[in-house]
Amino acid sequence: MILEGVVTTHDARGLLNVAPMGPIVDASISTLLLRPFKTSRTYANLKQQPHGVFHVVDDVLLLAEAAIGEPRLPLDTMPAETIDGTVLRDACRWYEFEIEEFDDQHERTTLTARVRHRGRLRDFFGFNRAKHAVVEAAILATRVNLLTAEDILHQLDALAAPVEKTAGEREREAFELLTNYITGNLRKKGSQSR
Amino acid sequence: MILEGVVTTHDARGLLNVAPMGPIVDASISTLLLRPFKTSRTYANLKQQPHGVFHVVDDVLLLAEAAIGEPRLPLDTMPAETIDGTVLRDACRWYEFEIEEFDDQHERTTLTARVRHRGRLRDFFGFNRAKHAVVEAAILATRVNLLTAEDILHQLDALAAPVEKTAGEREREAFELLTNYITGNLRKKGSQSR
Repeated sequence: MILEGVVTTHDARGLLNVAPMGPIVDASISTLLLRPFKTSRTYANLKQQPHGVFHVVDDVLLLAEAAIGEPRLPLDTMPAETIDGTVLRDACRWYEFEIEEFDDQHERTTLTARVRHRGRLRDFFGFNRAKHAVVEAAILATRVNLLTAEDILHQLDALAAPVEKTAGEREREAFELLTNYITGNLRKKGSQSR
Repeated sequence: MILEGVVTTHDARGLLNVAPMGPIVDASISTLLLRPFKTSRTYANLKQQPHGVFHVVDDVLLLAEAAIGEPRLPLDTMPAETIDGTVLRDACRWYEFEIEEFDDQHERTTLTARVRHRGRLRDFFGFNRAKHAVVEAAILATRVNLLTAEDILHQLDALAAPVEKTAGEREREAFELLTNYITGNLRKKGSQSR
């Protein structure tokens, strides 16, 4: 199963990076297969410091901000317990991991991570259509350069209906943030291709 | 916020009903606004026995079976603690409630429920695109008679991609169950309108 969440890593100087990540997990979530692109900060950091923290989140605003590379500062964090890493307090649960195997022959790498420690902060809300529409929009935001503008805008439009119907304040804000980011990037892309 | 889950109720003879339900909840989930249609079994039961159990679930096969009115028997259950009701053990959390107010002037009613007791069985998995595609398909299944066949099949087709990519075994089974139910009902509808 793929579990969409947020991963924190550090570079050699200790600088924190927060990124969305959808690892393949086993039933007990004791192994994570992370698949960052070679161009990503997460991959660069894990090559230097082969450990990090994966978070199960239900706050889609946090996920949206991570997806567009703009986590709201200051982040509410605490130190990880078994590795030199950072836990986001706004998560529902966290998994401290160490990379055991790097397979980086391809542009999209496969890093096998062993969970060393886990913790629980609060319950995951549950199924909400707006939250998931934001997750889908966040994935779209990371694919602006891979899909056509028409396809992206069509998909974004379909996601707006469940947000209208079932969102809370943070879901609305997250969807707006992603919509602005996506349309801004499509405009840039459009003007570049002219 | 709307929280999609599963509600159990009993009729006057004690017969159990399991149905999907998306109540509006407050932040602490201490009040639920249930909105069953007057034609539903849940509404009929709550008029007779004004209490029940709302469940936060992440098992979409359970949700899919409830949506098409065919929960797999025997269900794994236990008695509620503060009301005469039934808790599904496959849920993540449960909320035992009593109805305080019936507003049933309209076809779609609004029942205000007060949570009397809550319990926790296990963690909610977290965001998974296939799980949510199944939730959307389950909602489609309950709307076969409200939407055009073209619209339904178009939406169902768009949901198949995340299921392909991110599903586990139960998500696949749930999506297939709903797809068969929906296409079967569209066929019936089609032959009736000829």
